[in-house]
Amino acid sequence: MPEFPVAIDPADWVCPLPLRETRRIVLGHGGGGVLSEELIENLFLPAFGGTRGATRDSALLDVAGGRIALTTDSYVVQPLFFPGGNIGNLAVNGTINDLACSGAQPIGLTAGFILEEGLELDVLGVVAETMGRAAAQAGVNIVTGDTKVVAKGGADQLFVNTAGVGLVPPGLQIGPERARPGDHIIVSGNLGEHGVAIMSVREGIDFGTVVTTDSTPLHRLVAATLDAAGSAVHVLRDPTRGGLVASLVELARAASVGVELELAKIPIPETVSSACSFLGLDPLQVANEGKMVAFVDPDSSEAALAAMRSRPEGADAAIIGRVVTEHPGMVVGRTAFGTTQVIERQLGEQLPRIC
Amino acid sequence: MPEFPVAIDPADWVCPLPLRETRRIVLGHGGGGVLSEELIENLFLPAFGGTRGATRDSALLDVAGGRIALTTDSYVVQPLFFPGGNIGNLAVNGTINDLACSGAQPIGLTAGFILEEGLELDVLGVVAETMGRAAAQAGVNIVTGDTKVVAKGGADQLFVNTAGVGLVPPGLQIGPERARPGDHIIVSGNLGEHGVAIMSVREGIDFGTVVTTDSTPLHRLVAATLDAAGSAVHVLRDPTRGGLVASLVELARAASVGVELELAKIPIPETVSSACSFLGLDPLQVANEGKMVAFVDPDSSEAALAAMRSRPEGADAAIIGRVVTEHPGMVVGRTAFGTTQVIERQLGEQLPRIC
Repeated sequence: MPEFPVAIDPADWVCPLPLRETRRIVLGHGGGGVLSEELIENLFLPAFGGTRGATRDSALLDVAGGRIALTTDSYVVQPLFFPGGNIGNLAVNGTINDLACSGAQPIGLTAGFILEEGLELDVLGVVAETMGRAAAQAGVNIVTGDTKVVAKGGADQLFVNTAGVGLVPPGLQIGPERARPGDHIIVSGNLGEHGVAIMSVREGIDFGTVVTTDSTPLHRLVAATLDAAGSAVHVLRDPTRGGLVASLVELARAASVGVELELAKIPIPETVSSACSFLGLDPLQVANEGKMVAFVDPDSSEAALAAMRSRPEGADAAIIGRVVTEHPGMVVGRTAFGTTQVIERQLGEQLPRIC
Repeated sequence: MPEFPVAIDPADWVCPLPLRETRRIVLGHGGGGVLSEELIENLFLPAFGGTRGATRDSALLDVAGGRIALTTDSYVVQPLFFPGGNIGNLAVNGTINDLACSGAQPIGLTAGFILEEGLELDVLGVVAETMGRAAAQAGVNIVTGDTKVVAKGGADQLFVNTAGVGLVPPGLQIGPERARPGDHIIVSGNLGEHGVAIMSVREGIDFGTVVTTDSTPLHRLVAATLDAAGSAVHVLRDPTRGGLVASLVELARAASVGVELELAKIPIPETVSSACSFLGLDPLQVANEGKMVAFVDPDSSEAALAAMRSRPEGADAAIIGRVVTEHPGMVVGRTAFGTTQVIERQLGEQLPRIC
């Protein structure tokens, strides 16, 4: 042992970093980045007997002569309430969007609640009411549910799981394996709003303007895009946890293609970029809850873009880059000055710089 | 104010009872009894715009020329490991059984994990491995999943939500509304084992013999029963939370029929009944995780019973009562001495008598 004065007992010291060698779950395992992927690849998939294959937002199942999409997401956001919504509309729209980005039209949602003893019924009531309204706005029913209660201290107020089933139109082929070099990459609107809305409440920081969550259902935007561009739409993905970068790196790796972004063309509101620079976050890695990324054949990309822009949830859509054969599995950003940089996923979750 | 010495500050006193007037969630809201029903009827259904209608284990949806069943359940059992299994096989079999009791053959499951920071990966690995084996034994795939991590203290180790989709055979009609006076009531085997298995570990009580959970998938038992008795099978239900009584009261109320049980015919192992009398529990209200109750036309009940008994998971099946026109919505038990008693659901959860 080195001989120096020990100011604290080493047993009391907890390493603040998400060590890769840990035998324990760290927050980053839920962040949608590299650690999340490692957990899925090395623990869940071997256990469940699955193979990695193409990554998708939903599983596709053949049933009764048709194809359905099935997906699930748990929601644990804190605080429960934030500008533009609460955990309830997030849970409804998030699962609808996972279905939508498989090309499926949602036909039913489930709602599973885990409640902490002592939770105010008013809180639960507002969340449930919000879910009902979000479902009605989307034209999808919450058809079944489940409620569990755990003792005080056994959960943080309220968690919701929503699973969803959707119907995939006959013949529709959407998936990472269809990405083609030359495809234009379209994003359906402004990035970073959801993550900044949460962070601003969590950190109690006033950015002058309130940034609200972008949570919104995307299935009608998807339908409009498919109507306009049909089979020229190769890939759809909603860039939630881990933001645009996590989605693009995952797609690039799954399809063994490169992605080249024109950084100046990516729509990021001024409020989001100033909040991100204050918090030390990369807006391209901040979660969105009402945006999608589409890979579209270049011959049809203008038609797809026009279709998106014709809808309110796609009004700020933009072509932000293209699929290339170079640097497969990697995302490269080109600056307005013509320089390029490799854009890496985060390991776990971005931590706000608070001092 | 009454004048007597105040030994404790009233503000420090917490009422140990689940008060009906509470504006907060109590443990009983998750117990599958009266409080659970009130939460669903008064809070969730109005919020989700649903109507009560016939209560079912799964929602049925028309899709692509067929019918699918959709269900969800969250699992929060403590301890995570207990005789005969862990939260993993419970989560797989429980959702399969909800589908099975709608008459559906399961075709896919989702798995949504909420993990507490610091959870040992070994624990997660064993649970996931168990889920994979349970799914393989049942011949059903876990097709998609999700993982969230909450900060230490924000959840109690590990929660799992499983949702499931199943295919309902064309023309099959199973549901509480089909209950008919005269129907025989069959239970597929011994009651009370799961609840006692959990309680024995939780309370650290040694009953001499280890009672193991009865967690098992029931879809093959359902298929065998339907093969043998066809449309004479009117109602199926798996008596989980709240036990046999909660299921029967719910069915009696939904169908506006009475239920009459021959108490001496209900299969309860000696180990379960002695453990229950020690803990002050009613074995008819203790959870099962691998049993079903069937209402079957009396002309076909022997055929259904024989089909159940031909399978290992139905070896101890027995006819335990019948549906009657009298006392609609109520369950009445007839003792071996010919006396009868009304059997009421519990309000919330049964608490073990530990001193």
